[in-house]
Amino acid sequence: MSKPDALTELGEMLGDRFSRSKSDLDLHGRNETYFPFLPPEAVVYPETTEEVAKIVRICAAHGVPLTGWGRGTSLEGHALALKGGISVDFSRMNRVLKVHPEDMDVVVQPGLTREELNRELRATGLFFPVDPGANASLGGMASTRASGTTAVRYGTMRENVLGLEVVLADGRVIRTGTRARKSAAGYDLTGLFVGSEGTLGLITELTLKLHGQPEAISAAVCAFDEIGPAVDTVIQTIQLGIPMARIEFVDAATAAAFNSYAGAEMPEKPHLMIEFHGSASAVAEQAESFGQIVADNGGDGFSWSSRPEDRTALWTMRHNAYYACLGLRPGATALVTDMCVPISRLAEAVEETRADIARSSIPGPILGHVGDGNFHAILLVEPGNAAELAEAKALAHRMVERALRLGGTVTGEHGIGMGKLGYMEEEHGQAWEVMGQIKRVLDPSALMNPGKMVPGN
Amino acid sequence: MSKPDALTELGEMLGDRFSRSKSDLDLHGRNETYFPFLPPEAVVYPETTEEVAKIVRICAAHGVPLTGWGRGTSLEGHALALKGGISVDFSRMNRVLKVHPEDMDVVVQPGLTREELNRELRATGLFFPVDPGANASLGGMASTRASGTTAVRYGTMRENVLGLEVVLADGRVIRTGTRARKSAAGYDLTGLFVGSEGTLGLITELTLKLHGQPEAISAAVCAFDEIGPAVDTVIQTIQLGIPMARIEFVDAATAAAFNSYAGAEMPEKPHLMIEFHGSASAVAEQAESFGQIVADNGGDGFSWSSRPEDRTALWTMRHNAYYACLGLRPGATALVTDMCVPISRLAEAVEETRADIARSSIPGPILGHVGDGNFHAILLVEPGNAAELAEAKALAHRMVERALRLGGTVTGEHGIGMGKLGYMEEEHGQAWEVMGQIKRVLDPSALMNPGKMVPGN
Ligand SMILES: Cc1cc2nc3c(=O)[nH]c(=O)nc-3n(C[C@H](O)[C@H](O)[C@H](O)COP(=O)(O)OP(=O)(O)OC[C@H]3O[C@@H](n4cnc5c(N)ncnc54)[C@H](O)[C@@H]3O)c2cc1C
Ligand SMILES: Cc1cc2nc3c(=O)[nH]c(=O)nc-3n(C[C@H](O)[C@H](O)[C@H](O)COP(=O)(O)OP(=O)(O)OC[C@H]3O[C@@H](n4cnc5c(N)ncnc54)[C@H](O)[C@@H]3O)c2cc1C
Repeated sequence: MSKPDALTELGEMLGDRFSRSKSDLDLHGRNETYFPFLPPEAVVYPETTEEVAKIVRICAAHGVPLTGWGRGTSLEGHALALKGGISVDFSRMNRVLKVHPEDMDVVVQPGLTREELNRELRATGLFFPVDPGANASLGGMASTRASGTTAVRYGTMRENVLGLEVVLADGRVIRTGTRARKSAAGYDLTGLFVGSEGTLGLITELTLKLHGQPEAISAAVCAFDEIGPAVDTVIQTIQLGIPMARIEFVDAATAAAFNSYAGAEMPEKPHLMIEFHGSASAVAEQAESFGQIVADNGGDGFSWSSRPEDRTALWTMRHNAYYACLGLRPGATALVTDMCVPISRLAEAVEETRADIARSSIPGPILGHVGDGNFHAILLVEPGNAAELAEAKALAHRMVERALRLGGTVTGEHGIGMGKLGYMEEEHGQAWEVMGQIKRVLDPSALMNPGKMVPGN
Repeated sequence: MSKPDALTELGEMLGDRFSRSKSDLDLHGRNETYFPFLPPEAVVYPETTEEVAKIVRICAAHGVPLTGWGRGTSLEGHALALKGGISVDFSRMNRVLKVHPEDMDVVVQPGLTREELNRELRATGLFFPVDPGANASLGGMASTRASGTTAVRYGTMRENVLGLEVVLADGRVIRTGTRARKSAAGYDLTGLFVGSEGTLGLITELTLKLHGQPEAISAAVCAFDEIGPAVDTVIQTIQLGIPMARIEFVDAATAAAFNSYAGAEMPEKPHLMIEFHGSASAVAEQAESFGQIVADNGGDGFSWSSRPEDRTALWTMRHNAYYACLGLRPGATALVTDMCVPISRLAEAVEETRADIARSSIPGPILGHVGDGNFHAILLVEPGNAAELAEAKALAHRMVERALRLGGTVTGEHGIGMGKLGYMEEEHGQAWEVMGQIKRVLDPSALMNPGKMVPGN
């Protein structure tokens, strides 16, 4: 049978939850960064696991590719239907299915966003900590192994997904994991699907770990004259075992962006933004020890805010950093890099990157989740300016090479998508072939987000 | 070519590191619990990754099965050469290759034991936290996804392995992971090999996370009249977010075993053994909050020990619990169970199990890592008494069914081996087939620890 038959069948099954409207195709063909417009042939909006399984079976029978769509906030063109076919939009599967406060876990549908989840949890005294800057879907976050500002304390999606329900390429529906906190029962399939970017199956349900809202929270910002002492502060804090809940680095250019976008009044210098969670006295003690380390490293302008509204303002500003940076060059498109290195190499990684960007013609503020050794440069290019895009790509390429040279990874949290596929072999060597073998045995016709992740793909 | 040729080739290559001596075959045919004696046909003692790869290629060429051997302390017959072939003993690959104190990680060979590693780390102020009761090898611990008393704070092997070097069934040598703390670069192969029990490849190197030795440590023991209030104490402590480093439950029978084996003077009642790690004031505060919860739940005999020698005595006693329990019935063999449930179901799981054992004719002390919802019954049977073994297996079977009924897993930390293979389908449903697909694509001739883990196997 041919593709038109598949689309007809899907349309009959889904009614107005099957769409080929220009606005739907446009929305699902766009991405947050510099990748070209790549619309799917149709968009479907399933409401149940059974519908997802039926959709997959119809597509499998007709050889139609399927690409999952959470909120489309991924930064490497992950969710674009590179080989055509349909976009499976999970926005109508956005319910909290079951909260288990006594076990500190929750069962959700994949289209629910992290902010929606935390709103629903508010009354329970629990929260879900993983927080990429964007209000991403939990299915998308699991698929990219997302993290964010709190990973240094609470882990990434790898550590916070207990189990999944997944529809495989042949329509089988499997469940991975249990609600027990740990298990030694066989291969870690949960871990295999987390970070697989929809290339092995579609996630239709997630069981997530929750954490107790801390009794006390304290946050601070401090400035440094140079990058080195800021990073040394981070290293020393980690080594002393002071349990930071967040520790974020922003460089002078990002501080300037905050000033103009969010009305902040930060000196145009490198800064650390930090937060502690715990009992009132533990937080006070941690803040004091940290303050001492900052002082030893010549940091200043140290100001604590334990008022909730100040903290909210601080982290809202941080979460909007991407848009603040875009504001440095109105109309610009961003190429967002994402390198992660062992912490001992972080200062050198940031400084080399800073110098490399300074030599280029492109603005590129740097910021990152430095407690994990992870940082980004936001390279701002004029849309349609091929020379600038090439220059930005060359900078990004050198960042990737730097990450590998320093013993790190080409992506700390954003994932592979289209942008990093070319580095998989360099990072993984023959292990990349093993990924290809796993892909082929689970998706022999290469219909799940094809063109991505594996060799040949 | 035939098997004898393979053995000749291996002998020529390895000299006296290839053995068919009775003592070597005997040692590698035995297990810690009730599984029958199953000797391999030969034992090899490689010293390098290249040798392991050569061994695997020779075996692959001749269709000879290979089963890894760390320290042989696994409890479900994991390391027995069920289908014959050779036992690959990693005891000569036991070096620390590189410590990176500033990054808090270490690169080791698989045959190194956890105690050897911690001895070598002592001067660095760092330690490796995962501690099964036995002095297991790190390769074995990764292969079974081991945990132990500290998982509630520091995680299991899943959370503490950053990367691996693995020799695959066809002799390819791959590396997974990097020394960066997190990565979103493709499928999590590290996680796939951790817990795979040597059925997908042989681990020849591990990069492990380390943790700072805590500034202060405080440990305590307290007694309860019933199991319920002991478990409620654990649940309330978790919910208040008091960061326990260890929280262990032992029942009245185990307390009695400690008294006779280790000369303890514990009332024959259920007990909790707990430890806090942190700054001096944080530990003091945590101890106080915990003491309040214990009192609220009617616990007593609460005694703190912050003197290192008292703590060492306490945890040595706990680590020797298995042998203490064996001592309750001299000459007995143990069937060690290992269930793990969501914490809200823990009291009911322990109480039902306690009652079920009480109705049987078999002694069965219960103890466990209750902060994770994980506990064991040590069922003591007379060697050669088939009726007792059958009764113990029936008890163990009901524990497994109970774990699944309560939303848990058939093994929290010991793994599948031979003993739990029959429950894989019940726990995983169709996901078990997926494990079989992965196994077949990576080891199509089923030579890596054959007869285990997957369907058909
Ligand atoms: C301003 C901004 C800040 C950001 N900050 C961070 C950050 O700090 N940390 C971080 O990790 N990321 C960050 N990101 C990137 C992005 O938010 C994450 O990659 C996020 O995980 C994507 O979620 P999504 O729901 O938008 O997924 P999408 O972009 O819709 O999809 C991502 C991938 O997952 C697949 N997918 C989606 N849903 C499913 C499903 N149910 N089953 C199977 N596959 C599925 C898609 O096919 C695609 O391959 C940021 C992005 C922006 C725009
Ligand atoms: C008294 C006692 C207490 C215990 N307490 C705990 C506990 O608290 N928590 C816990 O998790 N476990 C516990 N165990 C079980 C045991 O210690 C663990 O399963 C441990 O991980 C086994 O390590 P090992 O080196 O002995 O491995 P082995 O028993 O030698 O092997 C285990 C499995 O791994 C494979 N293997 C070994 N080395 C490699 C390698 N390099 N590459 C690939 N495969 C390999 C083997 O083929 C086998 O399948 C306990 C055991 C005893 C005897």
